[in-house]
Amino acid sequence: MEIEALIFDVFGTLVDWRSGVAAEVKRAFAGRADAPDALAFADAWRAEYDPAMARIRDGDRGYVPLDDLHLENLDRVLAAFGLSDALDGPARAALNRAWEKLPPWHDTVPGLDALRERRIVAPCSNGSIALMTRLARFAGLRWDCVLGADIARDYKPSPAVYLAACAALRLPPERVMMVAAHNRDLAAARAAGLRTGFFPRPREHGPGQTTDLVPEQDWEVIASDLQDLARQMAGAGGVGGRILHDQVDS
Amino acid sequence: MEIEALIFDVFGTLVDWRSGVAAEVKRAFAGRADAPDALAFADAWRAEYDPAMARIRDGDRGYVPLDDLHLENLDRVLAAFGLSDALDGPARAALNRAWEKLPPWHDTVPGLDALRERRIVAPCSNGSIALMTRLARFAGLRWDCVLGADIARDYKPSPAVYLAACAALRLPPERVMMVAAHNRDLAAARAAGLRTGFFPRPREHGPGQTTDLVPEQDWEVIASDLQDLARQMAGAGGVGGRILHDQVDS
Repeated sequence: MEIEALIFDVFGTLVDWRSGVAAEVKRAFAGRADAPDALAFADAWRAEYDPAMARIRDGDRGYVPLDDLHLENLDRVLAAFGLSDALDGPARAALNRAWEKLPPWHDTVPGLDALRERRIVAPCSNGSIALMTRLARFAGLRWDCVLGADIARDYKPSPAVYLAACAALRLPPERVMMVAAHNRDLAAARAAGLRTGFFPRPREHGPGQTTDLVPEQDWEVIASDLQDLARQMAGAGGVGGRILHDQVDS
Repeated sequence: MEIEALIFDVFGTLVDWRSGVAAEVKRAFAGRADAPDALAFADAWRAEYDPAMARIRDGDRGYVPLDDLHLENLDRVLAAFGLSDALDGPARAALNRAWEKLPPWHDTVPGLDALRERRIVAPCSNGSIALMTRLARFAGLRWDCVLGADIARDYKPSPAVYLAACAALRLPPERVMMVAAHNRDLAAARAAGLRTGFFPRPREHGPGQTTDLVPEQDWEVIASDLQDLARQMAGAGGVGGRILHDQVDS
């Protein structure tokens, strides 16, 4: 298995969007009597995510970056919570940047750094380049480049997104591994010809999570977390050279 | 001057393409009687660079990544040196990767790291995402994301390339500074509304260089090298937060 690049799902797989968004909701409503339940608000905001992208995947709407979809969805969630007039425009824009301020899971940064020693690492997220860039600075994710929806002008799980990432790296899909805590993401990547790596994030949706607790296919690598995946990949004979003043290809 | 992101020319400005390409030419012809003058070969290869892009900028050809233009140009240069039959396909492809193995100038890595502390940094090069990604790993350039020709599907100095970089970061051009050792690159960036930073690379073209020895306009920052530019920017009141577990925007 000669994997030269690993591309990653980010929301849920590498960062804890639920806690991070809830913290920013709390901050936005600090000291106010109309403050919503922050975790419920985060869940509701996230629930608008896939339907908003589906319209674009289905061709009913041209490509719009996720930052803009998030802001539209925020308006809907505020309305659903009876808070349509609670935040003015600048306050909504500030809260929308919650998605740039999500904490990494404990194994994310060391796991990513270990993998980057020998292979190209890049996000392949539905987040825009702008969002991924600022989130990486916040969370300490060291990427080699930023791939994903903006490059393809389409949203996962459309095959175009995975294939655009491989094309941008000038690698055939079989030399690229998609890493995600979501079986659906990996199924689409595998269908596009990529290799796949899975580990669960059993608290992504909170204590009552019922989805993505186990691998649903025989993904090429199945791990307990990102550091475990890095350990397994270390023995897999990578072809990339070590970083820093050494060539990438041997 | 509230600069939130710095985008960089790479070939010449941050890395020494002439020495790096010459070293790979020497390696490709090691121990052979038909070895060309390596620096002359590097200069000839680089001389094909702008004409090849000009056809695409002018609309005479669709977008083709620089990796492919470099390989086409290599064939022309080999022919010009009477070496059309000297290297087989795999050897040409290997030599073409010389552009991924260029050494940084002495001030590049510390200057870039200093600037990255408070601002987003990204290449805005005519090199592809694949080329910039592998070159960054080789040369130790730590980027937040990779922008440039591939994002715009056009070549500098077309305004589309600078504007696509700003759009990808969701920043207005006046919050972005283009940094280059080439006056022509900065003139185009300024015309597109970006801020500009210059320092000379008086040995980019070897000891007899006559171009870009001095700034030809009143660029917003004029420095002696990248570390000097970083020192000047440190006093310029950046708006970006420090990296790692701290938000980018205040």
